[in-house]
Amino acid sequence: MFASLVLPSLGDNGACIMTLAVDPARLWNRLHDLAAIGAYRDEHTGLMGVNRLALTDTDAAGRALVKRWFEEAGLAVRVDRIGNVYARRRGLDESLAPVVAGSHIDSVPTGGAFDGCLGVLGALEGVRALDDAGVVTRRPIELGFFTDEEGCRFGTDMLGSAVACGRIPLEVAWALRDRDGKTVKEELARIGFLGDAEERVAAPHAYVELHIEQGPVLAAEGFELGVVTGVQAISWQELTIVGKSAHAGTTPMHLRRDAGFAAARIHLHLHEMIESGRYGADMRATMGRIEPAPNRINVVPGRTVCTVDLRNPDDHAMAAAERELAAFVRALGDELQLAIETRQTARTASIAFSGDVQEVIARHMREAGVHHRRIQSGAGHDAQEFAAKCPTAMIFVPGEYDGISHNPREYSTLEACARGATTLLRTMVTLAS
Amino acid sequence: MFASLVLPSLGDNGACIMTLAVDPARLWNRLHDLAAIGAYRDEHTGLMGVNRLALTDTDAAGRALVKRWFEEAGLAVRVDRIGNVYARRRGLDESLAPVVAGSHIDSVPTGGAFDGCLGVLGALEGVRALDDAGVVTRRPIELGFFTDEEGCRFGTDMLGSAVACGRIPLEVAWALRDRDGKTVKEELARIGFLGDAEERVAAPHAYVELHIEQGPVLAAEGFELGVVTGVQAISWQELTIVGKSAHAGTTPMHLRRDAGFAAARIHLHLHEMIESGRYGADMRATMGRIEPAPNRINVVPGRTVCTVDLRNPDDHAMAAAERELAAFVRALGDELQLAIETRQTARTASIAFSGDVQEVIARHMREAGVHHRRIQSGAGHDAQEFAAKCPTAMIFVPGEYDGISHNPREYSTLEACARGATTLLRTMVTLAS
Repeated sequence: MFASLVLPSLGDNGACIMTLAVDPARLWNRLHDLAAIGAYRDEHTGLMGVNRLALTDTDAAGRALVKRWFEEAGLAVRVDRIGNVYARRRGLDESLAPVVAGSHIDSVPTGGAFDGCLGVLGALEGVRALDDAGVVTRRPIELGFFTDEEGCRFGTDMLGSAVACGRIPLEVAWALRDRDGKTVKEELARIGFLGDAEERVAAPHAYVELHIEQGPVLAAEGFELGVVTGVQAISWQELTIVGKSAHAGTTPMHLRRDAGFAAARIHLHLHEMIESGRYGADMRATMGRIEPAPNRINVVPGRTVCTVDLRNPDDHAMAAAERELAAFVRALGDELQLAIETRQTARTASIAFSGDVQEVIARHMREAGVHHRRIQSGAGHDAQEFAAKCPTAMIFVPGEYDGISHNPREYSTLEACARGATTLLRTMVTLAS
Repeated sequence: MFASLVLPSLGDNGACIMTLAVDPARLWNRLHDLAAIGAYRDEHTGLMGVNRLALTDTDAAGRALVKRWFEEAGLAVRVDRIGNVYARRRGLDESLAPVVAGSHIDSVPTGGAFDGCLGVLGALEGVRALDDAGVVTRRPIELGFFTDEEGCRFGTDMLGSAVACGRIPLEVAWALRDRDGKTVKEELARIGFLGDAEERVAAPHAYVELHIEQGPVLAAEGFELGVVTGVQAISWQELTIVGKSAHAGTTPMHLRRDAGFAAARIHLHLHEMIESGRYGADMRATMGRIEPAPNRINVVPGRTVCTVDLRNPDDHAMAAAERELAAFVRALGDELQLAIETRQTARTASIAFSGDVQEVIARHMREAGVHHRRIQSGAGHDAQEFAAKCPTAMIFVPGEYDGISHNPREYSTLEACARGATTLLRTMVTLAS
């Protein structure tokens, strides 16, 4: 009865969808219940953080809790061979590909309550709202949380979703080891999440993910939500600069080969590249790590290791920026008589999300009067793996405190979280109709 | 008979002095015998280094050896209350103030065989050459080695000579503690070098010190020796830059407050100040220590500690450079919205050595056909304490391997060491005549 009531209007103008909403208090309570697993008090701020590193005992406890919530919601749960957990809500036509909404529940060692968890629990509360409203969709809806999205323990981020979508073979993922030499497979088995479901997903109808922005843009500009257009390209380089260690008091400037000075010159050049505008308005460059040796006040550094993190939504602009940097570094080495070795430590191409899915999301924001903008993702997400399999997009919820994340201070308001989850719910229903 | 023979010619044109020379092999053997005390093998290079930290058991063994050598040379040895050891060679007129030649035999933990020791053993071999030639000088000659010149253990360099010359009171020096809480006085007593001689020296007639350059200048320019004109002013500052830690992927450039970028800007500005020539050709600036936090490739540093080491032979130029740096740092903090706190960790004025003593040294170099130049000292030396008491100057011996020092690679050739010691000998005799 409900199905026949609801489905026709869902196919029309969405008037009925507009009445669907996630219960804010229920979502909020679940976020906090999950955050209690792996909770710790940050000694500097006194704030409670979350340490739920992938495939640890705390991750196992978090997984068990969310799995139980899935089951209590009447969903059919399966665990695949890389430990991804899916929960399926039947559709009217079970032969159709499902709409998938997922994220992750593992955390960095000093994480917060929202990163990943908001997407999983927001989708779960969306399904419960459908139950409350008696809505049945044409397509099945699957919720999912994916193994080791953070990559902090086994060194490869988006691990579970990358295996699910075929970028990383199962055997390769299983063989990854943590610092203690334990493999992913051993740890999956140990915590009881080495499932037997097929790990490679058949192409879903669509994938959508709710996530905190983890950046300051939406809040700084006063937007309530963001429609994510894609993930920018990332280039990580580690530069090892070798000059000659020298006494700061006795060595004239012209006889120095100062590795630390070269790092500063490279840092300034990165900023000049950005200010030039040659690589677009959204290029970002960071020198986050600088380690001069011997790192003493009165010694000219003979060696400095520093890193360059480049981001750009445009792959061509990224490649051009990398070329300019390489040419600058080469010329600088000659100028200062230094040996500079560059090692690429990460490189991912930009990913463009589906315009159609973005438009469904944006339409629901418009209709609800939510002040929103399109925004690139600065960080990696499980959604980028699914973008290779099916039409995909994401919804960003703004964060407080300049959007700080991977930190106990990570925080989004109840209103913002509920607004994001309700948008996710309506998007899922539209895509599943 | 020798005295009457020698003294008249010493007063004239120095023809006789020109025949005085240190025995190179004897000097070389003594340098190596002393370096065997506290010797260790550097694990990276396989080279032998010296670890003879002040007032340790190895320092005690080194002291005992040199004291025995002083006594075997027929010198009257005394140990003062700060552990300085003097060895006196009688002059014809014992009522006259002595000529003092000294340096130190303590080392940094990873030191070499030459720093300090060359000055002490070079002076000793000079005295032995006088004995061999049967020369008696009009004034007494005193050799000396001073306690804890390096300052590595108790935190204050030139400690013994500073007490001897009145800059640091004995009680203050005695009360200094090492990391284990042991005081200078306890350790002097423990190793048997808490002497009872008066620690404050009466003004000598002159002070002269032979030392390795500890820098690359003489060797780079092909000079055989240097006449040291003084010690440059030193200014050490530690800057703590506080911005805001941020995600390198999600934070647009204009919303960053990057503490590491500020350090790079300051580094570049220091070099611009030098290139401007505003502060003289001999200004030096070094950013030896840089510590961004959290020091991770994908995090904009919220905090960076860095150091600035400024050197200048001219006190006015140094003060002006410090003012320009402070103004730049202030403006930069405003521009980048950073809090930058500057702490002065060391500050010494420049010291000008005696033109007369320099001229005696330079004359002996000229007469011996030694290719030499005037040179500022980039490092601190016991001589700078004596410069406040009497006419003082130094002789620099070039070092190999870009003059590296405080390192097992520290090395000067036998010829260079002997050339320097012979110049010291002739200078002592001239000053004592």
